Amino acid sequence: MMKFKISNNVIRRLPRYMRHLNMMLAEGVNKASSGEIAKRMGVTASQVRQDLNCFGGFGQQGYGYNTSELRDRLAEILAMNENHTAIIIGAGNLGHALIENFHFDDCGVALTAAFDIAPGLVGTTLSGVPILRAETLESFLAETKIDIAVLSLPGKLASLTAGRLASCGVRGIWNFTNEELGEIPGVIIENVHFSDSLLALNYYLSEPREET
Amino acid sequence: MMKFKISNNVIRRLPRYMRHLNMMLAEGVNKASSGEIAKRMGVTASQVRQDLNCFGGFGQQGYGYNTSELRDRLAEILAMNENHTAIIIGAGNLGHALIENFHFDDCGVALTAAFDIAPGLVGTTLSGVPILRAETLESFLAETKIDIAVLSLPGKLASLTAGRLASCGVRGIWNFTNEELGEIPGVIIENVHFSDSLLALNYYLSEPREET
Repeated sequence: MMKFKISNNVIRRLPRYMRHLNMMLAEGVNKASSGEIAKRMGVTASQVRQDLNCFGGFGQQGYGYNTSELRDRLAEILAMNENHTAIIIGAGNLGHALIENFHFDDCGVALTAAFDIAPGLVGTTLSGVPILRAETLESFLAETKIDIAVLSLPGKLASLTAGRLASCGVRGIWNFTNEELGEIPGVIIENVHFSDSLLALNYYLSEPREET
Repeated sequence: MMKFKISNNVIRRLPRYMRHLNMMLAEGVNKASSGEIAKRMGVTASQVRQDLNCFGGFGQQGYGYNTSELRDRLAEILAMNENHTAIIIGAGNLGHALIENFHFDDCGVALTAAFDIAPGLVGTTLSGVPILRAETLESFLAETKIDIAVLSLPGKLASLTAGRLASCGVRGIWNFTNEELGEIPGVIIENVHFSDSLLALNYYLSEPREET
């Protein structure tokens, strides 16, 4: 498969295209112009054309995009077909919520296990996901190739745990703790900062309006 | 206070400046050039200057930015001083995690109450936040001005609940459900899509590297 280097800004927008394409497909929309896609997403048609051109123009002049093909191509670019595997470190409230409510498989990721230290949790199964003893992390990773570790444990343990994961060959860390993890060579860290989202909402709530 | 209309892209970046400024202040860094800020954030100095110029240049040629003043100005722009209030709708695992681990007050938002239907939860208090009966939402909102409602309830209830909130005058919805809420006049909806973040990580894990 041909791969192109794509700018971070475009990458960050692609999952949104994916969501809207899935909605269109669910509605039975088989083709769409850049203008139609743009309208749903609240962006400009030229933005859509420019974004989708980044990884090889597909979409035909005067016809638009075949929504199903476009979706499949985006899935390929977003590595949804590469069978990435994930584990969750910390099965407290947030870990629970992710295991029970977040559809890893919709992203093409298989959630394999969760790790915790609480005696009441270890040995149980949540939505089919076994909760294993945190101490067995290294031996588990020696036997099972895991691409992504989700950090949903107390922040003070984040950095130490990230180091353990990296030394076992885990290449992706999805960090839900508020801790800023330093760079780890060979590891990609994706931070989820709830506060970024709340602060944006905060701003929009007090944004100057037209009428004032 | 002077307010400027700022582009969405800049707004989305401001919380990140805020985080890095807080770290600098914690380290005792009192002034910083755009280049120094840029280096920490992994962006270009011209990007920093351009972003911060959007709301009135502060930062002096040849001196740089006073980190504490810059932080205060960002706090003002992000409406952190406006005493916004919030409630949580749905005190399940995710609601619990938000109540116990997310620092609303760090964003200048006061979390006032949570609502749920589970008899075992209603009437209890979590980290000082009372969990009230969902049926009392309207009467509560009639007496208490709430700016932001956090939706951490099952997705199938999201749309209905958003409507109830809007009709009670809540102007901001922070939506953690996977449901796409349609536009509601006068209401700002901020969606948290975990999958956008995981898909970006997915992409970076399989991104073509220099050596290939």
